[in-house]
Amino acid sequence: MKYYAGIDFGGTGIKVGIIDENGKILIKDSFDTDPAKSGVEIAKHIAECTRKVMKDSGLPMEDILGVGIGSPGLLNPETGELKVVVNVQNLNGVHITKILSEELGKPAFLDNDVNVMSLGEFYYGAGKGLKHVIALTLGTGVGGGIILNGEIYRGASFTAGELGHVSISRDGKYCPCGNAGCLERYVGRDGIIERFMISKNKGVKTNIDDHLDNGKITPKAIAMAAESGDALAIKVLEETGEILGSVLATLVNALNPEAIIIGGGVANAGELILGPARRTMYKLAYSIPADVVKVVKAKLGNDAGLVGAASLVVANLK
Amino acid sequence: MKYYAGIDFGGTGIKVGIIDENGKILIKDSFDTDPAKSGVEIAKHIAECTRKVMKDSGLPMEDILGVGIGSPGLLNPETGELKVVVNVQNLNGVHITKILSEELGKPAFLDNDVNVMSLGEFYYGAGKGLKHVIALTLGTGVGGGIILNGEIYRGASFTAGELGHVSISRDGKYCPCGNAGCLERYVGRDGIIERFMISKNKGVKTNIDDHLDNGKITPKAIAMAAESGDALAIKVLEETGEILGSVLATLVNALNPEAIIIGGGVANAGELILGPARRTMYKLAYSIPADVVKVVKAKLGNDAGLVGAASLVVANLK
Repeated sequence: MKYYAGIDFGGTGIKVGIIDENGKILIKDSFDTDPAKSGVEIAKHIAECTRKVMKDSGLPMEDILGVGIGSPGLLNPETGELKVVVNVQNLNGVHITKILSEELGKPAFLDNDVNVMSLGEFYYGAGKGLKHVIALTLGTGVGGGIILNGEIYRGASFTAGELGHVSISRDGKYCPCGNAGCLERYVGRDGIIERFMISKNKGVKTNIDDHLDNGKITPKAIAMAAESGDALAIKVLEETGEILGSVLATLVNALNPEAIIIGGGVANAGELILGPARRTMYKLAYSIPADVVKVVKAKLGNDAGLVGAASLVVANLK
Repeated sequence: MKYYAGIDFGGTGIKVGIIDENGKILIKDSFDTDPAKSGVEIAKHIAECTRKVMKDSGLPMEDILGVGIGSPGLLNPETGELKVVVNVQNLNGVHITKILSEELGKPAFLDNDVNVMSLGEFYYGAGKGLKHVIALTLGTGVGGGIILNGEIYRGASFTAGELGHVSISRDGKYCPCGNAGCLERYVGRDGIIERFMISKNKGVKTNIDDHLDNGKITPKAIAMAAESGDALAIKVLEETGEILGSVLATLVNALNPEAIIIGGGVANAGELILGPARRTMYKLAYSIPADVVKVVKAKLGNDAGLVGAASLVVANLK
């Protein structure tokens, strides 16, 4: 059996785990990062945490083939350099894979968080056994990972996959990215809440107050209200699915994938969004690519970042 | 020097040519097809025409490494089977590469006309030396070819690249494909003419009557009027470029290509469309991928189909 270490690096903490060649997590642990430390210190700390988990696993070190790390922000997966890590700016310019590799004596690989999640789903989740897979993460932002011919497609400057910034209307909502009508503005967290609130504030009846999420109206709260039969919540999620489905039709026409995998917190609404998305895609896309594609929920849930980071090793050493 | 034979097959005729390894056309000739003949007879006739051009070239047969053929319609590039050739239905179900290969004693390769044109531009035209290239053909229809990591990306069922059917608005113009707001309906031939006519019929002043194209208002006529300074023609082409540019931004965000190559009859309007398209793309796309991509006119013109078909051989035998 072969094993791979994965590091899910985020602004507030680090998750480290080890998966086996079937994608099963043998051990995982969480650690804090201290953004005030120097970039090299933070990187060395990440290595230390990883070494601890590797030791704790009780596995022979030679059976762990390598380390993968997923990070938000801009980075160069070829050189292993972090370029712009918004929440931990001291890491900007740090060659994280070089430090991990030196500290751990293993090959190390880097990619952005969305690509890494997509890769996890591709190897061990909803995309298992396929060749051409598009992954979309719906959360505060909307991200995308594109796997074509069995490999992450990164593009000319490693920014491919910004599917949250596919425009659905030139005259659509302003997006901070500089474009108008970006998908993210409609099916991301704030877009969903905004549409819900507009109707609620107009006095449309809703039982949302029975389903608040830590006292707040969130996509999770709206999904729970929808599951309880709340008509407004159902309508808002349906509309979210329809908007998403229209962009899926564009992706299906353009890229003819075998699967589109929908993950991220918003995707927990499940068929309330995926049902209308699938139907709309099927209605709008060409039938040959529409017949071949499956639109499914991501399988790896909260572990997607960890499993995905570890599967970077699989992808690079295969 | 190596040589490749290319066949540009269309509903009304066949063009056959031979290119050298620099993409230079050594010889080319045109032939008629008789759609009333059986599929096998038509395929054998295509082989006969190709054999004639190969002989006429005076080249030693062993120096011609293979034959590529581009065809409209649905087809399977892996098996070499034509599936749905709308204008020559007797060819449906014919394994054209098998017949060409048997008749000519050379390896033969098939792909659709747009992929073939894209490949021609990639090897010998505006995409030379690059890795990630998107080609768009603007004509009666709007087609697309996607070359990633130096290879045509065809997708799960060989329909990838339908970029004319990227939707720019869910509430947009109806498209016969079943979608709404398809790019093709705005920047294809009829979309451009329609926008021009709406203004003309309202009485907006134009000198278009001095520039008619065989007595008709066509994108070519509109481009000529624009070049002469006609304000309406300039506005219509500018708007065409802006709509195109918005979709280019989506493609740049999603696929981060090095070049987007615009070909087809409508692209002959050149900078009148490409200028606004480039500016709009640059304004709307993320700056990292926008900075790296060049938006340029196709270089191979009327020979793109021929050179592209021949370059199928290059792509397959490399």
